[in-house]
Order: sequence, then structure tokens, then C-alpha cells
Amino acid sequence: MARLNSFFLPPERFAAPFVLDGPEARHLLVVLRAKTGATVRLFDGAGREGLFTLTRVEKNKAWLEPIDIREHPAQTSGVVLALGWNKAGRRDLILEKSVELGALGLMFWQARHSQGQVPDSPKDSWRDTCVQAAKQCGNPWLPALSVIPSGLTGLLEIAPGFDRCYLLWESENAPALLEPARLAAGRCLVVLGPEGGLALEEVEALRAAGCKPVSPGRRILRWETAALLCLGLAHFAGEVAGR
Amino acid sequence: MARLNSFFLPPERFAAPFVLDGPEARHLLVVLRAKTGATVRLFDGAGREGLFTLTRVEKNKAWLEPIDIREHPAQTSGVVLALGWNKAGRRDLILEKSVELGALGLMFWQARHSQGQVPDSPKDSWRDTCVQAAKQCGNPWLPALSVIPSGLTGLLEIAPGFDRCYLLWESENAPALLEPARLAAGRCLVVLGPEGGLALEEVEALRAAGCKPVSPGRRILRWETAALLCLGLAHFAGEVAGR
Repeated sequence: MARLNSFFLPPERFAAPFVLDGPEARHLLVVLRAKTGATVRLFDGAGREGLFTLTRVEKNKAWLEPIDIREHPAQTSGVVLALGWNKAGRRDLILEKSVELGALGLMFWQARHSQGQVPDSPKDSWRDTCVQAAKQCGNPWLPALSVIPSGLTGLLEIAPGFDRCYLLWESENAPALLEPARLAAGRCLVVLGPEGGLALEEVEALRAAGCKPVSPGRRILRWETAALLCLGLAHFAGEVAGR
Repeated sequence: MARLNSFFLPPERFAAPFVLDGPEARHLLVVLRAKTGATVRLFDGAGREGLFTLTRVEKNKAWLEPIDIREHPAQTSGVVLALGWNKAGRRDLILEKSVELGALGLMFWQARHSQGQVPDSPKDSWRDTCVQAAKQCGNPWLPALSVIPSGLTGLLEIAPGFDRCYLLWESENAPALLEPARLAAGRCLVVLGPEGGLALEEVEALRAAGCKPVSPGRRILRWETAALLCLGLAHFAGEVAGR
């Protein structure tokens, strides 16, 4: 269904009567000039998608009738990346690729060596980027986006809620390699530092909390490269696991 | 050595007397204001790197004396990506990540569904992008860059020169998954189509020439995402193999 024109309707509004408004309706009605009778795909980013018929147009709103709605089973495995906050730093690229490569979520945490201050809540533009990527690749799931302004404290609170927790650590102490098999089952949290790296106290506190240090390899990778590598290995693990 | 300031001196000039000129000398002398006696790292992108002392400065040229030169053994394993040509399409991102993730080479080939025309030779700006990435990550090797304006014909000529040859194919015929183990040994060519995908005749000709179709997974990935995934899996395979 990914090749049809896709429109995003948030989960709280993904119910009859199905009505698009705002930019999504504008795109459908003004840019694509859709007429009643047209078939489109709607998805809610939370596992529901379906084919719909445009039945009524009124004041930049579009009413749609479902032809066929599919509800994907809840995702019980996958990876959540907790990324040390950086100014800019190709954040949009990671957001986009997290959708294509099927991550469960992205968290941005305030690390000791972060540049700038993580916002108090995820920005709307982040979700917009994810929505655009989801339209293109047809993923019915959007990654859950969150921020952890409290930094390490907040990370330590959420880590126990995961089935597995890893800490990507470029260290001369050479921890075990991050292997796809580690990401194959359950909900996995992978913590990455900011561009400036992890502070030793962060490493120690996360290890003490049960996060296993893993290495991306012997070469120093940039922030977004390390994130893309984790997303790619998790994608591969998910394909092997058939999820 | 990656943390020192690094300067690129092409292989044909990586010999005594070691002399930097042009933008590299400018960066050393004008931007960093290095004085004689300073220690810097030089690399040739072909496996040689070393520490050098700045001994003489004259007319925007810098003479350097080696302290210690290291020659890495030739790379006998790794991946070469043959990417279907696209207009722009985040080419710089792939160039940069190919260095960080240690690819042997990147080829751009003129595919049936390519947008635009692949240039007759690799652009200087491509190598510059790779050099900048190599400075940052400390990789002493630059990927070999090439173009294949003849497209499929040219690909068929070079494919037999590789130990293994794969064709990344998003197909309903569901070929085997591209697994890191496939990229673990020998020189591997992975052929990817352009954003518009491979033409059936290309798939058939490459298969007939011994390229094994492999799948990136069930989801449709963008051009650069498929390339990044291949680079990431090859990097992981290389780390496992200890290269």
C-alpha cells in the first residue's frame, strides 16, 4: 500500500468519522486535487493503516470512508536509541532513518558533554520528519519520540523498563562488539553519548544500572554514524527475527 | 593518531622530501598557524600514515620530516558498493560514511533508471569529501572512487574481478537476506540500483554474470538508506573478522 498517496491521521483521531484537516487535507485537496471517489491510504503511526474513499470535501476538510483497515499487532521487539543531545548534528537524518529502519523509538538525553540544551518536549518538526519518512517507506509505525532533560537521572529511571539495555561505548577497554543478535528479541535500549562522548561517571552509573557496554568497532565514529549503524544492525536483526 | 591534526598527502607525493602545498598547507600555516617544530599527522589514503615535524615554511609550502611512518598491510577484504547513479541524492553522505565505515570503494554506474548522467570521471569534490572524513575518523584508507558511464556493460566487465558479487534487490521474489557473514571475507561487490530501482534486464544480466541477489529486508528503503545499511553490515562483518 506504500505506493498509494499516504496521509497521516493521528491515533486519537483515527476513528469514524475519518476527517483530514490542516496540511494533510491541503496536500490531498489542493496539491493533488483529489476528487470525491479517490482512493487514498491513511495511517496513524501506531500500527493502523487502511484504504479509504474520499466521500466529502468541505472547507479544506476531507471526509473519508474506510474500504479496508488493517491493524498490525503491537511491536514487542525492537530498538530504542537514547542519543546524547547535540546541537543540530544531522538529527533529521536520524529521525528519517529510524522510521525506514523500523526503530521503536528515539530518546534525546541531556548528557554531560552535550552541546546545548535538550528541549522540554519533542518538537513537532521531529514528528513531521518521521511522518514524511513513513509516508515514503510505508511503515505503519512511527518511532516514539521523547526527551530526557534530566539526563542521566532520567535514563537510569527508564532503563529497567527494557528487556535489554546496552551502552555504546568507544573505549580502549574494548567491550564486546554490538552484534545484531543482541538486538534480536525484546525491547532493547541502546544508549549513545553525544558527539563529545560519554563522561566516565555516566558510563559507571549506567553500567551499575545494568547497561552492558558494547562497542561499535575499533574506529571512532561520528555521532550520527554510530546511530545509523545501530539502526542498521537492529533492522537486520529484525529481518532475521521475521518481525 | 586520529586526534592530532591530520593532513592529506596523495600517495604519489608521499615520499621525501615531504611537502604540503595548496589548501592543506594553507590550513596548517594560516588557519592553525603552526610553527616549525610542530607535530602533525600525514596520511596518503592508501594505507600510509605517520607523525611528522614541521621543519621549514616557505611561500605557503610546508616541509615535514618524518618521525615515524606506518604502512598498513594492503586490504584484501571489504566491500565495494556499485551505486546506480542519481542526481544529488545525498551522495556526500554516502561518500563520508564509506570512509568512516571502511568501504574499499564506491562506484557510480549509469543504470537504466538513473536520473541524469554519471560524469566521465570521479569529481575532485568527491575525494575532498572522503579526505575530510578520513581526517576526522583516522582511517588511513580512502575508498577507491570510480564511475561506470557504460553502465551495465561496464559492471559486467568488472564483476568477475571480485571474490563475491551481490545484487541488492528489493523484490517480491524475496531473495536471501543480505547477511554480514556474506561480506566477511574477500573483496565483495554489492550492486545497488538507482532511486528508481533496477530494470529487469539489469537484474537478469547481473544474475547471469554470477551476482547473487540479496534483499535488504521487507521494507522499501531509499537509495542512501540501502547504501548506508550495506556499509554498516560490511563494517560489522569487518569488525567480526578483525580487519
